Amino acid sequence: MKIIFQPDGKSATFTGSINLLEAASKAGVLINAACHGGGTCGKCKVQIIEGNLPELSQSEKKALTVDEVEGGFRLACKLVVENDITVLIPDLLGEGDRKKALTKLPDHFKQDIQIRKQYVKVKRASMKNQKSDVKRLAEALNISDLVVEPKLLYSVSKSLKSKKAEVTAVVKDHCLIAVEPGNTEEHHFGLALDIGTTTVVGMLYNLHTGEMIDVESRTNPQSNFGADVISRIQFTRESSENLEFLQKRIIQCFNEMIQKFSVRNTFDPNCIYDVAVVGNTTMSHLFEAVDPESLAKTPFVPVYCQGVNNLASDLELSVNPLANVYFLPNIAGHVGADIVAGMLATNVKNLPGVTLAVDIGTNGEVYLGNEGNILTCSTAAGPAFEGACIRHGMRAAKGAIERVLYQRGDIMVQTIENGDPVGICGSGLIDAVAVLLELGIIDKNGKMISAEACLDLGLSQELCDRLIQADDGMAFELYQNNGRTIILTQGDVREVQLAKAAIMAGMLTLLKEEGLKMTQIDRVLIAGAFGNYIDKKSAVKIGLLPDVGMTKLINVGNAAGTGASMALMSEKVRNEAELLSRFVKHVELSASPIFNDEYMNAMRF
Amino acid sequence: MKIIFQPDGKSATFTGSINLLEAASKAGVLINAACHGGGTCGKCKVQIIEGNLPELSQSEKKALTVDEVEGGFRLACKLVVENDITVLIPDLLGEGDRKKALTKLPDHFKQDIQIRKQYVKVKRASMKNQKSDVKRLAEALNISDLVVEPKLLYSVSKSLKSKKAEVTAVVKDHCLIAVEPGNTEEHHFGLALDIGTTTVVGMLYNLHTGEMIDVESRTNPQSNFGADVISRIQFTRESSENLEFLQKRIIQCFNEMIQKFSVRNTFDPNCIYDVAVVGNTTMSHLFEAVDPESLAKTPFVPVYCQGVNNLASDLELSVNPLANVYFLPNIAGHVGADIVAGMLATNVKNLPGVTLAVDIGTNGEVYLGNEGNILTCSTAAGPAFEGACIRHGMRAAKGAIERVLYQRGDIMVQTIENGDPVGICGSGLIDAVAVLLELGIIDKNGKMISAEACLDLGLSQELCDRLIQADDGMAFELYQNNGRTIILTQGDVREVQLAKAAIMAGMLTLLKEEGLKMTQIDRVLIAGAFGNYIDKKSAVKIGLLPDVGMTKLINVGNAAGTGASMALMSEKVRNEAELLSRFVKHVELSASPIFNDEYMNAMRF
Repeated sequence: MKIIFQPDGKSATFTGSINLLEAASKAGVLINAACHGGGTCGKCKVQIIEGNLPELSQSEKKALTVDEVEGGFRLACKLVVENDITVLIPDLLGEGDRKKALTKLPDHFKQDIQIRKQYVKVKRASMKNQKSDVKRLAEALNISDLVVEPKLLYSVSKSLKSKKAEVTAVVKDHCLIAVEPGNTEEHHFGLALDIGTTTVVGMLYNLHTGEMIDVESRTNPQSNFGADVISRIQFTRESSENLEFLQKRIIQCFNEMIQKFSVRNTFDPNCIYDVAVVGNTTMSHLFEAVDPESLAKTPFVPVYCQGVNNLASDLELSVNPLANVYFLPNIAGHVGADIVAGMLATNVKNLPGVTLAVDIGTNGEVYLGNEGNILTCSTAAGPAFEGACIRHGMRAAKGAIERVLYQRGDIMVQTIENGDPVGICGSGLIDAVAVLLELGIIDKNGKMISAEACLDLGLSQELCDRLIQADDGMAFELYQNNGRTIILTQGDVREVQLAKAAIMAGMLTLLKEEGLKMTQIDRVLIAGAFGNYIDKKSAVKIGLLPDVGMTKLINVGNAAGTGASMALMSEKVRNEAELLSRFVKHVELSASPIFNDEYMNAMRF
Repeated sequence: MKIIFQPDGKSATFTGSINLLEAASKAGVLINAACHGGGTCGKCKVQIIEGNLPELSQSEKKALTVDEVEGGFRLACKLVVENDITVLIPDLLGEGDRKKALTKLPDHFKQDIQIRKQYVKVKRASMKNQKSDVKRLAEALNISDLVVEPKLLYSVSKSLKSKKAEVTAVVKDHCLIAVEPGNTEEHHFGLALDIGTTTVVGMLYNLHTGEMIDVESRTNPQSNFGADVISRIQFTRESSENLEFLQKRIIQCFNEMIQKFSVRNTFDPNCIYDVAVVGNTTMSHLFEAVDPESLAKTPFVPVYCQGVNNLASDLELSVNPLANVYFLPNIAGHVGADIVAGMLATNVKNLPGVTLAVDIGTNGEVYLGNEGNILTCSTAAGPAFEGACIRHGMRAAKGAIERVLYQRGDIMVQTIENGDPVGICGSGLIDAVAVLLELGIIDKNGKMISAEACLDLGLSQELCDRLIQADDGMAFELYQNNGRTIILTQGDVREVQLAKAAIMAGMLTLLKEEGLKMTQIDRVLIAGAFGNYIDKKSAVKIGLLPDVGMTKLINVGNAAGTGASMALMSEKVRNEAELLSRFVKHVELSASPIFNDEYMNAMRF
């Protein structure tokens, strides 16, 4: 019997019957289950989208509404699976996380939304007024040279045939984008999309007020076809269909988000009239179904850097078919629109003094602002901090160890939402390495000592007992309970070393290019959701962030998403983005002798 | 056994075997057969597109090439049909006609083609030059802000991968339309299309030299679904699919033309980068698949009047997918882009004095230029002069009577290409009525006299014998031979009266609106292919054209097609077209008391 878990596409095979919650756990799929399988909290609600099911249990009858049952929803903790099924797991971000992400746009940003909705009553035609439908609509809107796409002529004529000829027009400059019968001024939406290599985020805005209304975050569905950009590019080389396939996957993911926004906020997706998208250069090429091959080999040249304006219908994005879908410009093969967006969000061009900024995602991009001058580079940091290539690594979701502390002679861990520990995410990883470095359990070269050497350091027996022999060398047991063990291996430490060294060497290279020293840095901006969660002291300790004093280390949140939102709501910001993409100096690290030196130095702790 | 004749879709059923030329004649389908079935001239070549055929005759082996035989071509005069077949009749315009139509654009026209092709060698990328493909192409083209459609990004990357990175870019302003490997500067084409209700014309231009290269003319394939605009609009009301069906028919017709142009002139249809289209307002709505319903009922309001820019790929027109297909603007419900194009071609706005212009097609549109001021109206003249509603009417094709003369006491007829007479076309019809009026055989009220009354007038016996009693009154025998009789009936004369009265009353109404008299007219422009063929004296005689002296009656040829060609090759002309469509005053005749009076007066000869 096979169970497929969507949206991630993971699957697992079992013999005999199995409880779905248990099956999910065995398959490494996270399901929220606050009451630990008691059937009382109702949090483990999942949707069965394929396969036959047994009858409802008493707990399910209590916890599920009639609509939910008809929609295939069941409680994972109470469902015993006997045949093949496909299960859709609700997104991992709870209501609380969504609210948390509803952040304000920066103070320096002034919205300047070009798309307006206007409700008008159009004059009837008569023998005395033989003006065309379009002309009469244009007069009602007071736009003398209204431009109407051929695709809209039909709906103009149709909507003017309605009883009162009262319509709401959606207009950008003097171009008609839509015309809707009746007064629909209230429904006026835009989308800002942030495509991370691992995680994608969609933000819904009210284009009238400029307010963020809703947000959704999901695993990038392309992840199954390559965890990092290089392996994803390789996947596109395997078959001529793969490029378009990856494009379709991401579009479908957004379409699901849009569907959710639309249901949750009760509006027609056709009332989304504008979309701004960011992502790294590879994500940009994949979104446009443009061959990214050249990004994976020297000289790492993208097909294009400029911003791309797509027609929503061409992309089959299920918003208004005439909506413009603007993908912000890239700077270079591995410094993409997400970094441009970050520069817009942090206003780096206009900040006084010296600003260093780092965006730690699946890649680590760095930029340096020096009195209006901007340099940038991309470091091949790898996805260690997102949990990839780490033995028990995982992304930041419930049950992930996010803090590691040394207390009363032993190690304590904290998990996200206090869930049962299931793995370790980036912030936990940094903490773990920092704590073990502090204690001397990891030495300056990154070598993990033995239990005996640990005792020699005068550390407690409990602590030293955590040092065990793993298949590839020493490992440190962070957590052990109920048969679940979470360890940090020597290999994991090496991955952290490689990643942090790349990022630090990137920073130092940019500083040297500008003839600056570490002491001249006025601030270090930490972008990415990641920045909100890491312990900065730990990050400085392991050498991921420069030691410039805590007050100069500033979290700027999801700067890429913020920049995308700004571009959504301002033509001026889009122009700035295009200028930035040409103006910023890109430093190619693989050709830089400075970088090579710094990289070797930075490898040590 | 059934024979279907394409492209007109006529069909006829026969029992036993039949010679194809004979079958065509019986079905009322014209086939060019200069040697009258001798099998020697090879002109009756037709293409069998469906059905089994007997072996080739000796004459066919002589007359047809191997390619032709493989393509299904046969000589109609030598082919005996025994089973169901579908035959494609080559277009009626011979090579000669095509050459004839290759007219010069007017002297006042200055071409200003915006689309240029440029062959460039693009620099290779390197670690020292990591600029994107688009950027390097832009630099080679020396266009700093090159805009590239998302759909083109793929071909940019592909063409730059070619061995030498030598490409030809097609650019309009700073927008890329296409990029082709190698040097393709020579292949640079544009299309001007004229959609008449009955006949469509396609003109192929070299956009480098501005020269017309080829022309094709065909029956509008929508004709089978309504001869005039009103019945065609009614057809769209019969089923929700019919509107799109009619659009597809006309597009398919143009695609066949394009295919022919491409084969005949050896180029890739993707090298057609720009298209300008004209037609009346109904043709415009049908081309855009916009509901034309409101054009068929008061107050005759179009959905739109402005020019429409379509993407070729949206229309499925088989030229370059990114080519712009510009349909010129309309003026009113029944004064369309064809008239706007005519105004551009005749330069009416800038002509000194008073200009009256008439375009006699399936409808009769009239405009009046008075020192820069322009008025226009549409007269419901009907398609009489195109042969519709006339007993033996036909369009101007081989065998149509085009001249009727009174010589040595009797009537003589001349046919197009001296073919055996098969019917009468517009110019012949006007001649016939004029001659009979002159002789007194038709009186001032349009009544045809009897043979006896004819003799009383002192006319010859042969002539008077031509007056016969037909089913609906008197008729005049124009031609009789080999069992084929071509007559002009009393009903035909009434149709002519209605048509010419409508056109004349339209002219007089416009003059009165401007407070002008007939004597103040400086020139009368006769537009439409029709104008080239009619005998102006006859037209004046029957009251179709005003009696202002022969030197003031000027043929301007297919002014609509000329205007479309001008718009194809000049952005300035497109702007003028948009201005004209708003500036010209439209006079609605059905609401005009002046028109009603004039119409009744003009009915008499």
